[in-house]
Amino acid sequence: MQLAIAKAEEGQTPFGAVIVRQGEVLAAVFNTVKPSNDPTAHAEVNAIREACKRISRTKVEGAQLFTTCEPCPMCAAAASFAGLQDIYYGATIPTISQYLPQIHLRAGEVLKQADTAVSVRQMEKYADACEELLRQFS
Amino acid sequence: MQLAIAKAEEGQTPFGAVIVRQGEVLAAVFNTVKPSNDPTAHAEVNAIREACKRISRTKVEGAQLFTTCEPCPMCAAAASFAGLQDIYYGATIPTISQYLPQIHLRAGEVLKQADTAVSVRQMEKYADACEELLRQFS
Repeated sequence: MQLAIAKAEEGQTPFGAVIVRQGEVLAAVFNTVKPSNDPTAHAEVNAIREACKRISRTKVEGAQLFTTCEPCPMCAAAASFAGLQDIYYGATIPTISQYLPQIHLRAGEVLKQADTAVSVRQMEKYADACEELLRQFS
Repeated sequence: MQLAIAKAEEGQTPFGAVIVRQGEVLAAVFNTVKPSNDPTAHAEVNAIREACKRISRTKVEGAQLFTTCEPCPMCAAAASFAGLQDIYYGATIPTISQYLPQIHLRAGEVLKQADTAVSVRQMEKYADACEELLRQFS
């Protein structure tokens, strides 16, 4: 999660994401919606794209995603399609909503409807540091 | 919608999508998950990326999306972030579920939680033709 926070700061956005599998970092990226004119280029989607490209597969099964902010429905669904095993996030969607427009649907609500199970949980230890990113860059 | 169906057939997938604004086709594409090793490369996401790239903006406001299959939560959320005005689809998620694993959350359920309103409706006239794509390519 510390690397995800560092990537968010590097990109001057509140959003950083890292994918790790068996101790190997497969992607460490930030949100690039504005510079790439791509509204789908959230940190988590960028991380999934990069990790899959790196291993030349359509899924990155058994991997962990660390993200500064709880995944929106787009990113939560993408995590399911990518076959991720676990998602760990810092700031919750209700917290993010204080700074930015949101879709008010929690990642767990989306993922519990998926045929492919993905576990998702907050790392409370990093909640304040991730909210500080929102305060700084929103 | 006829163009979306033609693009799906061209890509040999059940999934084609077209974005139109003020009578101009900004994107007409198909799902490229397998050839691009990108689990996020659903037809609708591809269409949004292409339309935004074409107009060099992060949003394609006031546009219509025509898609052979009801958008999954990833694509519905992406449509909201892209500022689309209307979504028209052929086959419903319950129908798609008979052919492929799904996230069992309707597009309207995701979009009603969004701060940015997007209308979404089925074009029943094309439901059978779009289900035929699922039958043929799944």
